[in-house]
Amino acid sequence: MSLDWNTVFAGRVAGMTASEIRELLKLIERPEIISFAGGVPDPELFPVEELSQAYERVFRANTGAGLAFQYSVSEGYPPLRDWIAARMDEKGVPTDADRVLITNGSQQALEFIGKLLIGPGDPIAVTYPTYLGALQAFSPFEPRHIPVEIDSRGPIPESLEAALVQKPKFFYLVPDFQNPTGVTTDWERRKIIVEMCARHGVPLIEDTAYAELRYDGVPPPALAAIDAEMNGGEQTGVLYCGTFSKVMVPGLRVGWVTGPKAAIEKMVLMKQAADLHTSTVNQRVLHDLVTRIYTSHVPKLTDAYGARRDAMLAAIAEEFPDGLTWTRPEGGMFVWVELPEGIDAAALLDRSIREFDVAFVPGAPFFHDRGRPSTMRLSFVSEPPARIREGVRRLARLLRSEITTASAQ
Amino acid sequence: MSLDWNTVFAGRVAGMTASEIRELLKLIERPEIISFAGGVPDPELFPVEELSQAYERVFRANTGAGLAFQYSVSEGYPPLRDWIAARMDEKGVPTDADRVLITNGSQQALEFIGKLLIGPGDPIAVTYPTYLGALQAFSPFEPRHIPVEIDSRGPIPESLEAALVQKPKFFYLVPDFQNPTGVTTDWERRKIIVEMCARHGVPLIEDTAYAELRYDGVPPPALAAIDAEMNGGEQTGVLYCGTFSKVMVPGLRVGWVTGPKAAIEKMVLMKQAADLHTSTVNQRVLHDLVTRIYTSHVPKLTDAYGARRDAMLAAIAEEFPDGLTWTRPEGGMFVWVELPEGIDAAALLDRSIREFDVAFVPGAPFFHDRGRPSTMRLSFVSEPPARIREGVRRLARLLRSEITTASAQ
Repeated sequence: MSLDWNTVFAGRVAGMTASEIRELLKLIERPEIISFAGGVPDPELFPVEELSQAYERVFRANTGAGLAFQYSVSEGYPPLRDWIAARMDEKGVPTDADRVLITNGSQQALEFIGKLLIGPGDPIAVTYPTYLGALQAFSPFEPRHIPVEIDSRGPIPESLEAALVQKPKFFYLVPDFQNPTGVTTDWERRKIIVEMCARHGVPLIEDTAYAELRYDGVPPPALAAIDAEMNGGEQTGVLYCGTFSKVMVPGLRVGWVTGPKAAIEKMVLMKQAADLHTSTVNQRVLHDLVTRIYTSHVPKLTDAYGARRDAMLAAIAEEFPDGLTWTRPEGGMFVWVELPEGIDAAALLDRSIREFDVAFVPGAPFFHDRGRPSTMRLSFVSEPPARIREGVRRLARLLRSEITTASAQ
Repeated sequence: MSLDWNTVFAGRVAGMTASEIRELLKLIERPEIISFAGGVPDPELFPVEELSQAYERVFRANTGAGLAFQYSVSEGYPPLRDWIAARMDEKGVPTDADRVLITNGSQQALEFIGKLLIGPGDPIAVTYPTYLGALQAFSPFEPRHIPVEIDSRGPIPESLEAALVQKPKFFYLVPDFQNPTGVTTDWERRKIIVEMCARHGVPLIEDTAYAELRYDGVPPPALAAIDAEMNGGEQTGVLYCGTFSKVMVPGLRVGWVTGPKAAIEKMVLMKQAADLHTSTVNQRVLHDLVTRIYTSHVPKLTDAYGARRDAMLAAIAEEFPDGLTWTRPEGGMFVWVELPEGIDAAALLDRSIREFDVAFVPGAPFFHDRGRPSTMRLSFVSEPPARIREGVRRLARLLRSEITTASAQ
C-alpha cells in the first residue's frame, strides 16, 4: 500500500504550478531560434577573467581559504554588507551593514517578504502586470491580489488609492524598467506613491533588480530614498531589494534586502531557518569583484544593452504593423507589446517558434489573474543588434498575417 | 508618522526567535576557548587544494566559463543529480536524476518539506530531542509537535505508535549519529519505523546529514532503502535529505532531497519561487570535486574525527563524576550528556565560558518545548585530541563542583 502524496500536501501547495516561462526556456535551445524570451543577461558580457582572479585571491587570502568554505553567519559576509550599505548611502538610502541581509538573489528576499507579511487570504497590492517571479514568491503564503493599473509613468495614483483603502499588507513595485513592461515610475509618481503608502500605513516593497541598467534619461531617486527624506533621514516604510544578478553574474545567487531593523531582524531568522546563509565563498568572491570592477563594469553593460535596446525599438518602429502599441524603456531588458484584442500571444508564440524561429514570452502570466492575453514581452539583451533586427522583421511578418486574418474574420 | 512593523507581520512570525546556538557561536571566538559547541566541520580538513583545481577546471571548461555563472534550471545541475542518483542506488535507494532536487544544503530541503506538508496547527512527529535547525525550518508553517522518545537504539516503537495514531503530517528523523544525541537508529528499529509509518500512511523524513561519518560498526540500510525493498523497489513513503556540507564543505551550500515524483515536482516549484536555483558554479565545482575525490576524502575525515571521538569518550569515562550519563556515538559529531536533574546546562555554560574557557551547547533548545534543561551537547570535531582531553578535564572540574554544590543544598 503506497502513500498517495497528493492527499497529504498542505493547502498552500494546490496553487503551485510550473512557470510557463521556465518551461518554455527549456524548449528554445535550438541555435537557429532568435530569442526575445529569457530575461537573462548575456554571458558573453560576464567578467569571467576578473572572476577567475577573484577566486584566486580568495584562495590566497591571509585568513586562509578554509574560512571561505566554512559555515558563516546568516546575515551575510560583513565586508559585502558594508559595501552595499555604502552604495545605498550614495543613492540617498541611509542604512548600515546591520540592516542589510544577504539573500540568494533578490528572489529570496521576495520570498522572505511574503513570509514576513502575508497571512492566508491577506490582500496584497501588485501592479497589473507585475514580475512573475514575485507572484510565485508570494504564492505559498496564499495572498489575495489587488491590482494596480500602470501607464507609461508608472502606477496610476487613482488605481493605487483604490487599492490602498483595502488595507493590503504591502504594495510591491519594480520602479525601474519594470519586468515585464520596461516602464519606469517617474519622480512625481514616486513621491505620490511613497506619500500615499505612508498615509495608509502600507509597507512598500521596492524591487530594484534592473535599476543600474539605465541607457538614457536621469535616474529618479529610489522610493526608499524618498521615504527616508520624508522621515528625517530614516527609512521607515520601504523594504528595498537589490541584486548582483543583472550587473555582475546571476550564477553566484547573491542579492540583498535592506529596511527598518524590526523587519530585517525577522528576515535574518527566516534566512537561518531557510538555508542557514548564502554561500560563503560566493559572497567573498563577489565582494572582491565589486570593490574592484563595479564602477567600470556597469558602463560596459549599459553600452552593449543600450545598443540592443536601440536596435529593437528602431526595428519595431519600422516593421510592426498598425494597431499595436509598445513601451520605450530607458533601461533594463524588456519592451512590452500590446496586440489587438482577440490575438492570444500564447497561440502566437507557438506559431512563432515553429514557423519563424523567434521566441518571446506571452504576457498573460504577468497578470495575477492572467487577465490580458493579448500582450507580449520582448527581451532585447540576449541577441546582438543584427539578430534583433532580423527577429523583429520575422515577428512583424507573423503579426501582419495574424492581424490580417483576424480582421478578415 | 512612521510605520510600526510589529503590527504588520504575519501570524507565523511571532514564533520566530533567534537560535541560541548561533547567537552563542558569535561569543566564543576567543582563541583560548576550547569549543565543544559548534557542530561544524574542521576547516583544516577541507580539500582546499582540490577545490582550487576544480574552480580552475570549471573556468577552462569547453562549454565556456560563462555558463557556470549564468542562471540555470531550478532542479539543479544535471551531472550532479546523475552522480547523486548513482550514489543513492549504491545505498539501495533506487532513484533517478529526475527525482533529485538540489537545495542549499539539506536545511533548505527541510524548509521545503515543511512548506509541502504542514498547514497551520497540523501535528508533526519529531524525536525528543531533535535537530534544532529542523524545528526552525518547520516553525514558519506553524506545526503542533508530537514528541517521540528515543533510547540508545533510536526511536522507541511504543512512543512512535502513540504519535502515529494522532495522524501527524510526517515523522522527522536523523537516523545516523543524530544531532544532538549521536544516537544511531539500529536495523531492527528502522524496519519497525518504516513499517509503522507505512501502516499509518505517515510520510517519513530521513535526514542523513552525518551518515557518511561512521567511525566503527556496520551501517544499517537507509530508511528509504527499507521502504523501497518493502515496495518492490520503489521508494514511496520516504523523503531522503542529503548534503555535501559535512563530507566536503558547507560553504558551497549544496544538498539534495529525493523521493517520490509527486513530492519532488512540487518542491521544484518551491525552489523556483524561493531562489530560482542553487548557485550554478557551486554545483559545477562540487560535481567536479566529488567525481574525483569523494571516495578518497571521506576516509580522511573519518580517520581524523574518529580519533577525536575516541579522545572525547576516553576522557569523559576517565574524568566525569558519577551521576551523569552520556551516549557513545559510532560516528557523526556529537556526544550527549544527561546531567543530574536540577542542574540547568544553560547556567552551567555561562560559568563554563567565564571560568573554564570551555564552550558547549545546552540541550534544552533541541526539545520543541525546551523540556529537559539538564542536558548538554558536546561536539568533538572542532578541536584536536589534546585540547579535547584538556577541555573534558576542565568540564569535569566544573561538573564536580556543581554536583557537590547541588547535593550539599
